[in-house]
Amino acid sequence: MIAWKNMDTLTAYQELKNAPKVDLAAAMSGEGGAQRVRRYSVPMGAGLAFNFGARPVDDGILAILADFAREAQLTGKFAELYNGAVINTGENRRVLHHLCRGQLGDAVIADGVDKRAFYVEQQNRIAELARKVHSGEIANAAGEKFTTVVQIGIGGSDLGPRAMYLALENWAKVNGCLKMKAEFISNVDPDDAAGVLSRIDVAHALFVLVSKSGTTLETLTNESFVKDALAKAGLDASKHMIAVTSETSPLAKSDDYLAAFFMDDYIGGRYSSTSAVGGAVLSLAFGPEVFAQFLDGAAEADRLAKNEDLLANPALLDALIGVYERNVLGYPNTAVLPYSQALSRFPAHLQQLDMESNGKSVNRFGEPVDYVTGPVIFGEPGTNGQHSFYQLLHQGTDIVPLQFVGFRNSQMATDVVIQGSTSQQKLCANVAAQIVAFACGKADDNRNKYFAGGRPSSIIIGDKLTPKALGALLAHFENKVMFQGFAWNLNSFDQEGVQLGKVLAKRVLAHDTDGALKVYSELLNI
Amino acid sequence: MIAWKNMDTLTAYQELKNAPKVDLAAAMSGEGGAQRVRRYSVPMGAGLAFNFGARPVDDGILAILADFAREAQLTGKFAELYNGAVINTGENRRVLHHLCRGQLGDAVIADGVDKRAFYVEQQNRIAELARKVHSGEIANAAGEKFTTVVQIGIGGSDLGPRAMYLALENWAKVNGCLKMKAEFISNVDPDDAAGVLSRIDVAHALFVLVSKSGTTLETLTNESFVKDALAKAGLDASKHMIAVTSETSPLAKSDDYLAAFFMDDYIGGRYSSTSAVGGAVLSLAFGPEVFAQFLDGAAEADRLAKNEDLLANPALLDALIGVYERNVLGYPNTAVLPYSQALSRFPAHLQQLDMESNGKSVNRFGEPVDYVTGPVIFGEPGTNGQHSFYQLLHQGTDIVPLQFVGFRNSQMATDVVIQGSTSQQKLCANVAAQIVAFACGKADDNRNKYFAGGRPSSIIIGDKLTPKALGALLAHFENKVMFQGFAWNLNSFDQEGVQLGKVLAKRVLAHDTDGALKVYSELLNI
Repeated sequence: MIAWKNMDTLTAYQELKNAPKVDLAAAMSGEGGAQRVRRYSVPMGAGLAFNFGARPVDDGILAILADFAREAQLTGKFAELYNGAVINTGENRRVLHHLCRGQLGDAVIADGVDKRAFYVEQQNRIAELARKVHSGEIANAAGEKFTTVVQIGIGGSDLGPRAMYLALENWAKVNGCLKMKAEFISNVDPDDAAGVLSRIDVAHALFVLVSKSGTTLETLTNESFVKDALAKAGLDASKHMIAVTSETSPLAKSDDYLAAFFMDDYIGGRYSSTSAVGGAVLSLAFGPEVFAQFLDGAAEADRLAKNEDLLANPALLDALIGVYERNVLGYPNTAVLPYSQALSRFPAHLQQLDMESNGKSVNRFGEPVDYVTGPVIFGEPGTNGQHSFYQLLHQGTDIVPLQFVGFRNSQMATDVVIQGSTSQQKLCANVAAQIVAFACGKADDNRNKYFAGGRPSSIIIGDKLTPKALGALLAHFENKVMFQGFAWNLNSFDQEGVQLGKVLAKRVLAHDTDGALKVYSELLNI
Repeated sequence: MIAWKNMDTLTAYQELKNAPKVDLAAAMSGEGGAQRVRRYSVPMGAGLAFNFGARPVDDGILAILADFAREAQLTGKFAELYNGAVINTGENRRVLHHLCRGQLGDAVIADGVDKRAFYVEQQNRIAELARKVHSGEIANAAGEKFTTVVQIGIGGSDLGPRAMYLALENWAKVNGCLKMKAEFISNVDPDDAAGVLSRIDVAHALFVLVSKSGTTLETLTNESFVKDALAKAGLDASKHMIAVTSETSPLAKSDDYLAAFFMDDYIGGRYSSTSAVGGAVLSLAFGPEVFAQFLDGAAEADRLAKNEDLLANPALLDALIGVYERNVLGYPNTAVLPYSQALSRFPAHLQQLDMESNGKSVNRFGEPVDYVTGPVIFGEPGTNGQHSFYQLLHQGTDIVPLQFVGFRNSQMATDVVIQGSTSQQKLCANVAAQIVAFACGKADDNRNKYFAGGRPSSIIIGDKLTPKALGALLAHFENKVMFQGFAWNLNSFDQEGVQLGKVLAKRVLAHDTDGALKVYSELLNI
């Protein structure tokens, strides 16, 4: 029997607060440090490893975290989720994004449909469309192949698919599977759509309109923007657009689209990269085989998240160490620092995934909680960040836990040797150096050159950023956020905090305002 | 006589801590809220206004902040700076970036040179080069015009110029002054350079190598990367490259470059967008006239920063309200949220500017301070962020002060009317709505739909994002960060925190490691 309890009612949480703290700088020094880094590593699927040598835990704290996981029934709650329970209580919905990449437990029948079969059917339909587009069987009015795919969506329909596309664009280029270049239109700012349209050839562009409800204001506005441009170019918009939406949305059976592919209410926007939302644009850009590899990587990570053994479950481990850093050590932020230019927008996706899921003050029953929840997430790729905000991370007054990602090999395999090393070796040397610099610090009589150390980090290490590795990386963080939500007893799958702004914006546009809102509206000439 | 004192020795700081707090939700409600928004607005140059109606201050707190500014001699310290004093004590350097855009005080003679004249000379030399490149007088070996300019630099030589380029690219396109497309190579990750090179036509590309010291590892590595590519294409690299560096660097008089333009040790990387570092790439991309307008806007904002009257000095005001939020109210982060897709990388630039300047734990004399200093800065453009991390901003357990930016008009002036309003109107309606939603919140018996409010923000409002407005916007934040550094008694102009990682990375590459560093090096196959 699963019991949903606030974290501060758990015995293990009290023990965690009372456990002796780790002196990270000391623990990471000398041979003891070397042993920690060797021991504190867990496979995370697709050849990746989660190394937490430089996180502020020891065997004693890990034992309490394992107790915490048992007491809070965290893997049991995950089983409830993948077996189809209504985990998103606020919206009375199941949470089924894992089914896009595999069947982790029982068949889930909802609305009379086997949901795994439904998601696979959509993948197959998308694959068929993609093959026809790539072969030219589906072409523009002049019979020419489409060369560009443009995703129109916002939030989860934008950040995840965009980050995944950028992560694989150069990989696909050198591996001969960049079938179509992808672009993205998201912002209601008209300069976003106008800017993208000014740099593409609309006659050879296929647009993917993504809105689960079919009512997202930004997305429908940008669709009209694009239709205008197509009409001005003398093109039939219905031959240049496909839709990704729910079966019940107004877009589902419209003649305005070449085809429509379906998602449903059981997959939240920020968890939709492995659904048709990511599937359409990524299959068109890279081919359905690449998208299938991406799903395989995610499935591997998902299976590991079932492990009851904390030390064989990297997502659970990452989650609980994060809870310890947030609630016991009191660190308000987490930085995501991939040493891979291809992951340039991965931190922005995780920022949404994490902050929209767990940026909440009430538990899943709508009662205020007495502890802090989701941290602020930010990050940029290294080595760029080293020449930017790392100053504060090293010597600022607040400690920020860090999540590094690094790969032994580059994606494009073009490199130069300067001063006896390749660029890839320099990149890897830098991330190794940073972990130790943050953890161990450096004494110096000149306090301006003094590094206190004790600044925790983990690193996910892989061989190369392939579609499969990317899938495992994505699923790791999705599952981490899910476990943290369970630990904090939140509903990580709704987002009521976005509603009030929408309501007030409508009032501004209807000129139904008073007080401060009226003055701001005037100042902005609305 | 200027006295450099720690903030906690100031009488005004103690008064600030004891002053009654503002109930922001109450203050922003009804007619009182409307009056606040009307009154709490300060011109910031180039037609922009800084509106702080929704920041958590009132006339009483503002009076104490004015006392604080006087007691801490903040405008007097700025005068020291622009008159050429050695403000960067750690590195024994003056701080002269303001001289790139105007003469605020006395002539500054350093090393026997009038520095304003020196910076203007570099601007003129760059303008001349840009005109020759645009006219085709300087062309490639085949006598064809260069069409692309590629900046090779990292940190301050990358983030600022890149953010400024992106801010004006679409504006330039519709105003007929996009002379060359710009690209940027920064990361030592070989996939960064390889990726950029795979999408440009190197035969028509002019590369701008930017390194003050001429020794930045990433930049020199990427230069070699590019030279390799040029050689493989049968091109003479020295006819495709210019350098921006200091006069004493090894790059300054090398035959490897078509030309070299100079900066000096008195302009830090993160303050260098208005120097030759930004000047070369932006003048090549948009023409020197556009770059001059950008400088004019910055100069306007700089002049306002001289005002001793707090309420006529928006940078000082923004700075001190920020100190109040950070040190008295205890908020650890600040989000930058431009409602303008063109400002997509402006938050990343401010992240460097702010966190590298004020992420410090010792005062300008190298003594530890007993108060928190620079916050974590992050942000993304609205409305995108609304569908992402705003959930946490509205309903999370931590309060994050927000800095909005909005413009009445779009840059490209292409728009559509949907449901009775343009996209630009929807964009503006959203930012107005967000400010009020954050400040006032909304009562609801369903705690999941309840918004506590009391979440502070300011907004910078302009007519349109032009080069001049962009200059004023940039200088505002530069000066804000400077004033906060003065308030915290920091040296905002060095960055010792980036050194340790460099030293350790060299040891890794030399295989001179032990302990944890050796194990990480092995795990990453270095």
